[in-house]
Amino acid sequence: MVDLHDNKPPHQVVIVGGGFGGLYAAKALAKANVHVTVIDKRNFHLFQPLLYQVATGALSPADISSPLRSVLSKSKNTKVVLGEVSDIDTAEQKVMVGDENVPYDTLIVATGAKHSYFGKDNWEEFAPGLKTVEDALEMRRRIFMAFEAAEKETNPAKRQALLTFVVVGGGPTGVELAGAIAELASKTLKEDFRNIDTSEAQVLLLEGMDRVLPPFAPELSQEAQASLEALGVKVQTKTLVTNIENDIVTMKQGDEIKTLASKTVLWAAGVKASAMGKVLVEKTGAECDRAGRVIVEPDLSIQGHSNIFVVGDLAHFAHQNGKPLPGVAPVAMQEGEYVAKLVKKRLQGETLPQFNYVDRGSLAIVGHHAAVVDLGFIKLKGFLAWFFWLFIHIYFLIEFDNKLVVLIQWVWSYFTRNRGARLITGKDTLQSAQVENKAHYQTVSTRRPLNV
Amino acid sequence: MVDLHDNKPPHQVVIVGGGFGGLYAAKALAKANVHVTVIDKRNFHLFQPLLYQVATGALSPADISSPLRSVLSKSKNTKVVLGEVSDIDTAEQKVMVGDENVPYDTLIVATGAKHSYFGKDNWEEFAPGLKTVEDALEMRRRIFMAFEAAEKETNPAKRQALLTFVVVGGGPTGVELAGAIAELASKTLKEDFRNIDTSEAQVLLLEGMDRVLPPFAPELSQEAQASLEALGVKVQTKTLVTNIENDIVTMKQGDEIKTLASKTVLWAAGVKASAMGKVLVEKTGAECDRAGRVIVEPDLSIQGHSNIFVVGDLAHFAHQNGKPLPGVAPVAMQEGEYVAKLVKKRLQGETLPQFNYVDRGSLAIVGHHAAVVDLGFIKLKGFLAWFFWLFIHIYFLIEFDNKLVVLIQWVWSYFTRNRGARLITGKDTLQSAQVENKAHYQTVSTRRPLNV
Repeated sequence: MVDLHDNKPPHQVVIVGGGFGGLYAAKALAKANVHVTVIDKRNFHLFQPLLYQVATGALSPADISSPLRSVLSKSKNTKVVLGEVSDIDTAEQKVMVGDENVPYDTLIVATGAKHSYFGKDNWEEFAPGLKTVEDALEMRRRIFMAFEAAEKETNPAKRQALLTFVVVGGGPTGVELAGAIAELASKTLKEDFRNIDTSEAQVLLLEGMDRVLPPFAPELSQEAQASLEALGVKVQTKTLVTNIENDIVTMKQGDEIKTLASKTVLWAAGVKASAMGKVLVEKTGAECDRAGRVIVEPDLSIQGHSNIFVVGDLAHFAHQNGKPLPGVAPVAMQEGEYVAKLVKKRLQGETLPQFNYVDRGSLAIVGHHAAVVDLGFIKLKGFLAWFFWLFIHIYFLIEFDNKLVVLIQWVWSYFTRNRGARLITGKDTLQSAQVENKAHYQTVSTRRPLNV
Repeated sequence: MVDLHDNKPPHQVVIVGGGFGGLYAAKALAKANVHVTVIDKRNFHLFQPLLYQVATGALSPADISSPLRSVLSKSKNTKVVLGEVSDIDTAEQKVMVGDENVPYDTLIVATGAKHSYFGKDNWEEFAPGLKTVEDALEMRRRIFMAFEAAEKETNPAKRQALLTFVVVGGGPTGVELAGAIAELASKTLKEDFRNIDTSEAQVLLLEGMDRVLPPFAPELSQEAQASLEALGVKVQTKTLVTNIENDIVTMKQGDEIKTLASKTVLWAAGVKASAMGKVLVEKTGAECDRAGRVIVEPDLSIQGHSNIFVVGDLAHFAHQNGKPLPGVAPVAMQEGEYVAKLVKKRLQGETLPQFNYVDRGSLAIVGHHAAVVDLGFIKLKGFLAWFFWLFIHIYFLIEFDNKLVVLIQWVWSYFTRNRGARLITGKDTLQSAQVENKAHYQTVSTRRPLNV
């Protein structure tokens, strides 16, 4: 609680970003004698690890989101501001949110990363990435519209392109996406169409390295690839995408150049730092890596600015084993909690040893009930790993009602292979660019261009 | 099943629209010796009676939607076509879907209604209606953005306008919307903001007639109004809206003209027939009423076209007591099932007596756990009515997983008053037109104008 008998004004902690890093920092400060302001441009915390399930029609956005205000409503020392930080004034110690100034004593920047096309931003139109709820709904629409268009298409070549799904990038997101789409095609949608056999759909997973899930142990990469192939996914490693345009993917395998016609290309490859990275570099003189991540000190602060911290995907922390920590939720959570603890220590005139990430292992799901889990001391695969994966994800979902609803939907879809959230929604502008016969796809929403 | 040993080609039934009328007709024909084609411009059946719960953040779109293909996947004689019917050729007996022709022996038109602004279509921008999933998400965004903007607003008059919600139309949708918003303000959001007291928000329900819920018995209208007022809703009957522009609502009460500043005006008043009504009138010479609904024969066919039927909100059926049947789900379901039965009879060279609607009563929910139910022989109110309302709505949700998920979310929100689906999503173009300081509300999606 804020001590009102204290004469000096309470210490102001400003947290930019309500993802895992920012939210866990805020929660850890809930009872501290500080004022906390959490600034986010969205009004909800998003459980990104499950975003691919929204993209493939298994869950609804609200199932994996929690309103920031309700998550933090019990923290009476915490204020949530919906807005985007446009600038930082390190001399005056304030951040600009629109035309409003928010003063800080300690600033924690946790604005994360967005997907990167390695400078080929024109690829985005043909190969959307998966970072936001809107991204997921867009992917969902493209995936299900492709099957709808194929059902109508009479030209075999065009139908083939509509039934070809390419996932670029063999990390956890790419693996989970490819597995889920293969399962949609071979199981969920099998009975639903009359002109096409959805199980003839091709799903390709393209990875530049020599194996999928590079962060995992090699045998688990092999296990994951085997599970994917059992689901019918064509896994192509050592494959570099050189162009994506007009529904044609061009790739390089060794010296060989291949092209592939696909109406649905999904991007799960590179990430780059969010815009705040650049602002920090300009205003604090911080250095950043090639992905734009801000290089931080052993205590996650910025060199020369001991009261400005960077946590989560935006931070480049390489003080543990020389390699920067990966951009995953557990790292962000631990970094956020560490900084909160350090702030509290400092208020008592103390400090903390440097941040040390405790790797509790990595896990990825492959298709319906197979997963790979690498806990270091033990490696799980198959059903047991899937069950563990499910448990962990349910456990970390912020709000209880989400947990319950998601669990129900998983248990249900586990037994029925049914996916309820298969709505094709939103404006069809892009839709018609994606499929043949745009006239078929006029939706009600086109009457009102401002509709979401 | 389709009898393949039958020499003549099977009877082709084409159903336009997958709402209650069309879907229940299709389900009733599942085992008949006919080919059924269901044409809809959306890929899902929407349980419209619960749409207001999506608009107020209690449910997700997928909770009240079922993919048409999966609902009908077991009906092997039934084909689903995603598309919009642009024309009908009664001589050739075919409908045009984009550039494709679909031949019919029997045509069932069930394209429903959309909301009407009584010719004042420019009101729509300021007062969106509630017919589609996009409408509901748009309402949800406006409602929650209004609270967010009020939290920031320092000008008392502007803040007042942001905390004033006007629902136009005192039918079931209007009553349910107003009750839900009042509850949001007084209970759900109470703890979430720091600068505003959401319980000071004003919710007005404007009705032109002398009481809310005109189709109900007078004492239930009184009961509903009392429940609304207990929730803090200001009910204004005998009130006609004469203009809605730039966040100002102008209304006429008797000879008195009043204006009210409100950032969030929601339209639950008039409905008019969907575009297919006009096509039918042109192509069949059918007559229509002032709302554009097609006047049908006692067997729901169009005069002079015994093989073309109109069911649901698009039909004007006045052969029971002179008054046209109301545009509610039970009427559409019974009409759809009647036509399906009649088609089967005709194939056996028989016929049916005229359609007769069995009114099982009407019900509406008011706020958290009060409702009014009029079963004719018995009138329920309060908790018992609420429980009955809940049971009926759960019972008629098409798919089992929806039922379970919706039940969980209701039980949960019943005990916690929490609403999980409070995401503000989609493009913020309109958002910024709705609230002050657009710069505050840049969302990730604005990076990609094509996002839903």
